[in-house]
Amino acid sequence: MRSPEEHREVIEAYVAELALTPELGAQADSLRYALTGGKRVRAVICLATAEAVGAEPEAALPAAASLELVHAFSLVHDDLPALDNDAERRGRPSTWSQFGEAVAVLAGDALLAEAFRLALSYPTPSAARELAQATLGMIGGQYLDITGTASDEATLHKLKTGCLFAASVGLALWVAGVPEREQGPWRAFGDELGLLFQIVDDVLDGDGYVLTHGEEGARVLADEAAERAQARLAEIPVDTSVLAGIVSGLAARTS
Amino acid sequence: MRSPEEHREVIEAYVAELALTPELGAQADSLRYALTGGKRVRAVICLATAEAVGAEPEAALPAAASLELVHAFSLVHDDLPALDNDAERRGRPSTWSQFGEAVAVLAGDALLAEAFRLALSYPTPSAARELAQATLGMIGGQYLDITGTASDEATLHKLKTGCLFAASVGLALWVAGVPEREQGPWRAFGDELGLLFQIVDDVLDGDGYVLTHGEEGARVLADEAAERAQARLAEIPVDTSVLAGIVSGLAARTS
Repeated sequence: MRSPEEHREVIEAYVAELALTPELGAQADSLRYALTGGKRVRAVICLATAEAVGAEPEAALPAAASLELVHAFSLVHDDLPALDNDAERRGRPSTWSQFGEAVAVLAGDALLAEAFRLALSYPTPSAARELAQATLGMIGGQYLDITGTASDEATLHKLKTGCLFAASVGLALWVAGVPEREQGPWRAFGDELGLLFQIVDDVLDGDGYVLTHGEEGARVLADEAAERAQARLAEIPVDTSVLAGIVSGLAARTS
Repeated sequence: MRSPEEHREVIEAYVAELALTPELGAQADSLRYALTGGKRVRAVICLATAEAVGAEPEAALPAAASLELVHAFSLVHDDLPALDNDAERRGRPSTWSQFGEAVAVLAGDALLAEAFRLALSYPTPSAARELAQATLGMIGGQYLDITGTASDEATLHKLKTGCLFAASVGLALWVAGVPEREQGPWRAFGDELGLLFQIVDDVLDGDGYVLTHGEEGARVLADEAAERAQARLAEIPVDTSVLAGIVSGLAARTS
């Protein structure tokens, strides 16, 4: 089985060489810019899950890439002046800062549509359906965030971050042809991933859960989420060692 | 067979009662606002095409609505200050003017994702695939428009307007199960619709084709497009009388 780092290299090459719709013309530059960088966490989870359930990881590449495109779309629009007003992303100008606001709005739109094009390359609509649901949940979370109307932090993050992480597992299950009735244990695992990722993010950035629970309290919550994710994996009767390594990596990451 | 006006009433009711994804919460208000008004031309073409090829028009309602949601998404984002900066749309505040820019960006995103959710309600991915391609073409056209980089007006409008009109016919064909090898004459018809609509739009607004061809010249171009559309329809061996009426209506419309 491939290591997380091997999965990362494969998806990185796939995204770099991705054929975008020709009608986008010169706009493709802004999409490729927005797609550069990032840890590809969601794609790696998707590829590793696909391999764990017995699929060729290559078969999951379009699905894995679709998750990265939805993630990139969300960052491009979140960074806009009207939303988070972030002029920098990953140590360089954000997409609107580099290409202007108008092109950035359209680049986000095109990334989302391209994501569906990729998820729709499979014979059945299941993967694309799950991507649509996850995207809508994520947008719902972003709405709660910018309007400050979330009832609590857990609800906010479950939508804003959790939906797409859960879909990273879910899309792999559809691609691998795992019947819905057998997906339960995997989905319980997927539900823990977003929370783990978000809490560690907050610990690294000193915001969110750190503000409400203190740094030590947030670290405890992250460790508990990691433990639950590992416990879920342990209940699944296939080799989940690579995914267990990914969970450990997410809990221990320093960037 | 139903008249265009009957199709319009049916799609209007369907869109008005459309169940949006619960996770959108209060954001649904901005989506419903953006979906109010409009002539539903694309949806009516979709429903009339579906009925002409022998499908129950009800079966085409999710596809027809998905076209209206993509159209609404494009208007919400096009109206943004960074793009066309239109504070009004259909005689009332545009979505960003009513809800603020941040909510409008997310409302457009959610409309696009909801459109795919609808197009993905069919057993096969064909309709959703065509919607993705048409959306990407439309975004490519919008990019040419805002950057002023279109090589010519025909290319611009073929992308910006034509793609979604062509898809209005195309989605109906998939929903009705018309095999790809039999779609040719229908697609030739669909390709004329967007051009016809755009030229008449320019005649009514006094811009675009009127600036390059004069009002009389633009009117001649519109009549020629209508004639070609009618000729295409006449070649199709089913009852296309309702669609012929829609073409005449598009050519003669005054608003």
